[in-house]
Amino acid sequence: MALDLFLLAGMVFDDNAAAADRGRVVSVSMFVAVLCLCVVVGHLLEENRWTNESITAIVIGCIVGTIILVTSKGKNSHIVRFDQELFFMYLLPPIIFNAGFQVKKKQFFHNFLTILLFGIVGIFISFAIISAGSWKLFPKIGFTGLSIQEYLALGAIFSSTDTVCTLQVLHQDDTPRLYSLVFGEGVVNDATSIVLFNAIQKLDVSKLEGWAVLHVFGDFLYLFSTSTILGIAIGLLTSYALRVLYFGRHSTDREIALMVLMAYLSYMMAELSQLSGILTVFFCGIVMSHYAWHNVTENSRITARHIFATMSFIAETFIFLYVGMDALDIQKWKAMKTSLKTCFGIYGVIIFLVLLGRAAFVFPLSILSNYISSHSEASLITLRHQVVIWWAGLMRGAVSIALAFSQFAHSGVTWDPVYATMITSTIVVVLFSTLVFGILTKPLINVVLPHHDQQPKADDITLPLIPPVDSAESGLLQARRSLSRLLARPVHTIHAYWRKFDDKYMRPVFGGPT
Amino acid sequence: MALDLFLLAGMVFDDNAAAADRGRVVSVSMFVAVLCLCVVVGHLLEENRWTNESITAIVIGCIVGTIILVTSKGKNSHIVRFDQELFFMYLLPPIIFNAGFQVKKKQFFHNFLTILLFGIVGIFISFAIISAGSWKLFPKIGFTGLSIQEYLALGAIFSSTDTVCTLQVLHQDDTPRLYSLVFGEGVVNDATSIVLFNAIQKLDVSKLEGWAVLHVFGDFLYLFSTSTILGIAIGLLTSYALRVLYFGRHSTDREIALMVLMAYLSYMMAELSQLSGILTVFFCGIVMSHYAWHNVTENSRITARHIFATMSFIAETFIFLYVGMDALDIQKWKAMKTSLKTCFGIYGVIIFLVLLGRAAFVFPLSILSNYISSHSEASLITLRHQVVIWWAGLMRGAVSIALAFSQFAHSGVTWDPVYATMITSTIVVVLFSTLVFGILTKPLINVVLPHHDQQPKADDITLPLIPPVDSAESGLLQARRSLSRLLARPVHTIHAYWRKFDDKYMRPVFGGPT
Repeated sequence: MALDLFLLAGMVFDDNAAAADRGRVVSVSMFVAVLCLCVVVGHLLEENRWTNESITAIVIGCIVGTIILVTSKGKNSHIVRFDQELFFMYLLPPIIFNAGFQVKKKQFFHNFLTILLFGIVGIFISFAIISAGSWKLFPKIGFTGLSIQEYLALGAIFSSTDTVCTLQVLHQDDTPRLYSLVFGEGVVNDATSIVLFNAIQKLDVSKLEGWAVLHVFGDFLYLFSTSTILGIAIGLLTSYALRVLYFGRHSTDREIALMVLMAYLSYMMAELSQLSGILTVFFCGIVMSHYAWHNVTENSRITARHIFATMSFIAETFIFLYVGMDALDIQKWKAMKTSLKTCFGIYGVIIFLVLLGRAAFVFPLSILSNYISSHSEASLITLRHQVVIWWAGLMRGAVSIALAFSQFAHSGVTWDPVYATMITSTIVVVLFSTLVFGILTKPLINVVLPHHDQQPKADDITLPLIPPVDSAESGLLQARRSLSRLLARPVHTIHAYWRKFDDKYMRPVFGGPT
Repeated sequence: MALDLFLLAGMVFDDNAAAADRGRVVSVSMFVAVLCLCVVVGHLLEENRWTNESITAIVIGCIVGTIILVTSKGKNSHIVRFDQELFFMYLLPPIIFNAGFQVKKKQFFHNFLTILLFGIVGIFISFAIISAGSWKLFPKIGFTGLSIQEYLALGAIFSSTDTVCTLQVLHQDDTPRLYSLVFGEGVVNDATSIVLFNAIQKLDVSKLEGWAVLHVFGDFLYLFSTSTILGIAIGLLTSYALRVLYFGRHSTDREIALMVLMAYLSYMMAELSQLSGILTVFFCGIVMSHYAWHNVTENSRITARHIFATMSFIAETFIFLYVGMDALDIQKWKAMKTSLKTCFGIYGVIIFLVLLGRAAFVFPLSILSNYISSHSEASLITLRHQVVIWWAGLMRGAVSIALAFSQFAHSGVTWDPVYATMITSTIVVVLFSTLVFGILTKPLINVVLPHHDQQPKADDITLPLIPPVDSAESGLLQARRSLSRLLARPVHTIHAYWRKFDDKYMRPVFGGPT
């Protein structure tokens, strides 16, 4: 009624504005209704071995898209247009903050070096392979028209992974190290690919020289460190405020409001300062769960944990639902003038490069990591684990779509046939990888980690996970162990010092378990 | 970074779009930062006897508005433009849903008739007095140019009250009946004034006859009943789904997501069906807290209670902050060409009519209610309580502002001098009533209800609240009591039947304490 009355009021001045308002109400209602449907169906299919939440949302999105397409007689397939602002300003921050808030900090920091190795060096390798590969292979299958910069952007677009699917299958309690590696890499690599994409946008390709790569890498390290520091600073400020002001005395709601608002503020401030909001909000989440968490009432703790998880859950479902609907957007398919054969060639090339690019860094870097950071057999990345890590990063998700739209479309629309082909290819790759690789994930993990299912939360679960495959190398193990022990000591020492420092200086000021 | 990169991408095509995006980031960040400030300052001033959350937010809004005005050299005073869509689609629903979710149902339904009497009949009386009064008095102080319809709209705009301020002072445990009356009337009267405003927009004033009033009233009753039924239906559906699907088995987050989404959906569906979203979402909240609440896990219960309260808290702070900033919008003051004397005349007339219009229904209707619905001295509305109820409804708030903008402005801007005067008058009245009446509320209630402070949650607290003022009427009381007993029986019987029906048929299906 209230809205309707504004429509009437608006109509006096402007018929279009009123129609747009009305349309907004219809589309928001439909989207919310479909989201509810996703929640219910996702719950009913929880026990199903082939599917998961993302796949459910995408499939429902496709079905709804088809229905809209039929009822609108081919004019339209989505409820809302893809909006980068919506994605980057409102949907991504809660997902990433929640990731930081729920991460098991001990495992995460224990594996910090390996995570950075995968998430930064790995993405650079994958980026180089996908960029170079598509630049070489696209003309061979008869697709031309992209500039050097666009090939580089393509590398960044298809280097961002979506590990949600695998994380739903792995269990944090059964394989803590593997979980933490897959999870940590997922977050770092989202940030890396966005930062990399941004650096490429600024790159002046005409003056490209050898130093440019180093420059991009330098830029990246600067962004990484400043964004992290900002996130930690805001997290500490919030913890301190919550501790000193002791909000719970009057109102639990104020505590929660302050946590939510400060978390969001950290993201926005990073964006304003041209830093990486993703990294900032992630570290803000880690700091808040480490300190702020202990300064609030028991009710606030429970609420905070679930409020962030629920927001993240809704945002993720929203994104996958959207991707499903967008796949049926007839305009893009019409705008594209590429032949069917070339199209399938492009999809094949990209999927091949994604598989190759990921293999090219997961296996070598795992071996490197085993040499430098491990100090016992339990913390080696076994071949089976390497396969799981490789597989976990094959899915492409919302970040790829958002980057592709920002590169090849303007306000969600593109009329250029080459650009339209790139956007539809991104959608196809995202759909294919999420659906096909996603459906295979559960069976694959059951095969690769056979004890995974039968192992209900044993205390010492790392032992049976060393597969017999590696036992042939046991000669090498001896030598490796002595080297790694030397290298492991500083890491251990740093950790011990940090614990002392934390207990003595940080926790008394910012809060912690007493 | 991510956003910045889209700005760069956008800039190739459209400089303005990029600037607008950037502006959006800046304004959202600033608004979030100021919201945080409000939370902290509101907490620090909690114990202060003159102020409350609304006043704090308005004052901070004014200060920030002044700073923006100075730094932008008089160009601008607010961070975001007033957006009816934002208000009615995103800010109002959580506030009203939370009201329904937290209401003490027993008291609310016990006083249902009185609440409806105040909230519906009362608003019609107040509306008539304000419309007629302004129509008579405005020309006398030299302000002309409004049509009949606009005078009627003015009546609806200034009939909606904002009881938040008083509710922060009253305690639900000390004076349950008074609290429930003030609270219930506040919700019903928001809905009534919006529905009334809408009816006036549709009214063809040229064909105005005696039947029109009846027609508006009939329309209103239809809307009231259908909106209520829709809200109850969606609430029951959600409760049933939560009970049957037993989400908690897998995920607490899904339960909360479903509750939040369904609550919002109820509002949107009402809007789509041209019903009153406010009433729908309010009754949806009541039903959810009565049934759905019992079907979820313990953690979900705690989270749900706080998630809704926090959302409502943030939305309220947001609105008051905005009102404070908007007061300094220089454009509106410039567009207005009314002399200072006339302006103050208008403010005086409106405030006088608000005081009069409210007095004209609170006192007579309280007496009427005492005659028909009470069945013991404890549930009489004493004169002291009548004064509190009258005072509680003097504040004007966000609904008034939103309605005034929808009547007199288009997309938050107005160039017509008469309309600009009306908008600035609304803002002045809202500020004046919230600040001046608001500051006086705590002292006034302490004087009118002297035992209020010293009475920490006694079990039988209604007795000392019957003031000696009424004891003179004790002769009348006898007669009144026998009449009321006769009338009270059906109400009591209905309540008893409902309890039986609820226990036997509703709770086993939709959930409830076992």
